[in-house]
Amino acid sequence: MIVIGERINGMFKMVRKGIQEKDKKIIQDIAKKQVEAGARILDVNVGPAAADDVAAMQWLVETIQEVTDTPLSIDSAKPPVIEAGLKACKKKALINSTTGEQAKLETLVGLAKKYNAGLLGLCMDEKGIPDNIQARVEIGLRILACAMEAGIPTDDIHLDPVVLPVKFGQAQTPMMFQTIRELKTLSDPAPKTVVGLSNVSQGCLDRPMVNRIALVMAIANGLDEAIVDPMDKDLMNSMITAELLLNKFIYCDSYLTAYMKAL
Amino acid sequence: MIVIGERINGMFKMVRKGIQEKDKKIIQDIAKKQVEAGARILDVNVGPAAADDVAAMQWLVETIQEVTDTPLSIDSAKPPVIEAGLKACKKKALINSTTGEQAKLETLVGLAKKYNAGLLGLCMDEKGIPDNIQARVEIGLRILACAMEAGIPTDDIHLDPVVLPVKFGQAQTPMMFQTIRELKTLSDPAPKTVVGLSNVSQGCLDRPMVNRIALVMAIANGLDEAIVDPMDKDLMNSMITAELLLNKFIYCDSYLTAYMKAL
Repeated sequence: MIVIGERINGMFKMVRKGIQEKDKKIIQDIAKKQVEAGARILDVNVGPAAADDVAAMQWLVETIQEVTDTPLSIDSAKPPVIEAGLKACKKKALINSTTGEQAKLETLVGLAKKYNAGLLGLCMDEKGIPDNIQARVEIGLRILACAMEAGIPTDDIHLDPVVLPVKFGQAQTPMMFQTIRELKTLSDPAPKTVVGLSNVSQGCLDRPMVNRIALVMAIANGLDEAIVDPMDKDLMNSMITAELLLNKFIYCDSYLTAYMKAL
Repeated sequence: MIVIGERINGMFKMVRKGIQEKDKKIIQDIAKKQVEAGARILDVNVGPAAADDVAAMQWLVETIQEVTDTPLSIDSAKPPVIEAGLKACKKKALINSTTGEQAKLETLVGLAKKYNAGLLGLCMDEKGIPDNIQARVEIGLRILACAMEAGIPTDDIHLDPVVLPVKFGQAQTPMMFQTIRELKTLSDPAPKTVVGLSNVSQGCLDRPMVNRIALVMAIANGLDEAIVDPMDKDLMNSMITAELLLNKFIYCDSYLTAYMKAL
């Protein structure tokens, strides 16, 4: 499993403060802590923190890269903000995200090609989030085909089935698990599957519990990567144990610490 | 999910003491606690506790039925011990277990028919536990076909993919998950799937963690029933949350307690 750290996001109060006050230490601390906790990619999202989000994204990327060479996931709904992030990235980046909307997809495939970046595609389009598995898989296939035609290797394509809050769209959760399973069958080699996990527990009383059980169930269905809070130790231990049970690494009594050391 | 309480088993010290000293209170306390903790069936296994295990099984069943009318799972490798348990059962019982061995299968299908009991079948036979999914599913089909031919309704047939310790047979664990998935496709209506879960964590340092993650992954693959320790609160909460995420009941903030109350 590749853990994509979700904590550098302007929707979090401390990060917003860091962006607004150009306080590098705040951002760099969160970056370092996530990497130490097991993040292999760091998501970077300006969120609602800055009026000039192009400049803020560039500043964030540069600030983070001063303390870690962990690859970044450039997260924005706006292509110019994404391009500002990609331009500043020293390592191969991940674009987060496109959807199946034709215009958006073409723009972001173009950016992925130009910057040799990975591309995360959400299984939704101009009509919204489909309420059935087949339509989501079809959008995933559309994104995959468009990216492959542009010469992006399958390995750089990350498909997200779209995670909705169990509290508000409960019938969607089992659909999400099955979509992961089916996305893995779209090509050989298969595209990567990824989820923005924490959305599943929006509004729930015990969010960490809902998050970690959903993550384990998604892993049981073939999930490769998750955008999560790596500082949630119970979540990380659950994830590692799920990987153990899928025979991804050899059991030893100290497998939890051994896994972290091997990262 | 149907929880089958595993704690009345002569391999546990207190239960052994209860059986050997004919101390009803010990057994009845464990029975009541498991039912309160969410068990819907109680497994009853004399284990190594008594020389006369036929008499011990009868005594156990009668003792438990004095305090609860929860259905029992009569657990023994010996058909005469099973029959002694079935004879004493007031409610519909579950036979735990047959395998695909022809002679054993015929005997236990006969007992299931005679006593109108459910039948739990392990996906193994005279050749042992297959090291591949297909052979396990074939044994499951053999058990299912034999039971159905004898007129046992599909709903009374419970197939167990066989759970081995992750520490000693790690490659078998993902196979077990996939076998659950495939057993569900054998007939329509599908047979029930069940696992003797705790075996997965034999010899592991943190057994509760391995148990609960394995259970959640099995549920994600379609598991219907599990033989577990219902007094393990973290395990039960994980199970209930997995069911929530499969949309088996409606979310409310107090879903954990609401689920238990609805049992």
